[in-house]
Formats: sequence, C-alpha cells, structure tokens
Amino acid sequence: MPRKRSIIAAAPMADILRHAGAERVSEPAARALADVVKDFTFEIAKDAVKFAKHAGRKTVKREDIELARKRI
Amino acid sequence: MPRKRSIIAAAPMADILRHAGAERVSEPAARALADVVKDFTFEIAKDAVKFAKHAGRKTVKREDIELARKRI
Repeated sequence: MPRKRSIIAAAPMADILRHAGAERVSEPAARALADVVKDFTFEIAKDAVKFAKHAGRKTVKREDIELARKRI
Repeated sequence: MPRKRSIIAAAPMADILRHAGAERVSEPAARALADVVKDFTFEIAKDAVKFAKHAGRKTVKREDIELARKRI
C-alpha cells in the first residue's frame, strides 16, 4: 500500500504553479497544494469505491469516478 | 515546463483507489481519476496565482493556496 504522503509530492506542485503563471512559489505553498490535492484525490477515491460496492461490483469503473466527481 | 499529462499518472491513481478499498480498478477508471485530479490541481493553481498577483506579490504563498481551496 502506498503512503498518502509519497503519492503527491511538493516538487511537481511547484512546477504546476509555475505552469499556471507563478513567477515564484514558496515551499509551504507547494506543500499546501500537495496536501489539498492529496485530500481531494482520496475523497474522490473513497466515494468511487462506495459507488462501485453499491452497484454490486468489485471493480471500480470509470462511471464510479465520474459520479464521485459530480458529487464534489 | 511540465506537460499536464505527465504530472498526474494513472498508475498511482489505481494505488490510491486500492488504498481507499477497491478490490479491482479498471484502467479507464484510473485514467479518469488522473484526469479529475489534474484538472482540479490546475484550477487551484490558477486561482492561487491570481490571488498572489492580486495581493501584489510575485511569489505564490501558502495563503493563496488556502484561499483557492476555499473557493472550490
């Protein structure tokens, strides 16, 4: 099982912020964005798993992700 | 500049879904989650950059990320 912290790293978040137009990015900002993205990803994932189980499936499918996205 | 697609990969998304309780994850589901997360990350990043500029700063700070998060 991956640890949450290792999945969304701060360095690519700083790249994304610069890609979005930032001239400079503070280290706490990059870490904060990683935390926000990590929390969001796990929220979507948990909902998608619930929806798959509710539909009587063991496999999470694209439709579960789409439904989870709509809920947030 | 990183390409959007390369930043959020499908494989770690499948790991996160399994971490959230999925027994199996379809490949389209993993890709859909990567797309959702990628879009969300760029939305937050763009808002954070706007807020930093609005505050007269060239540096994106943690407070910009926090404000962007609250808006979504």
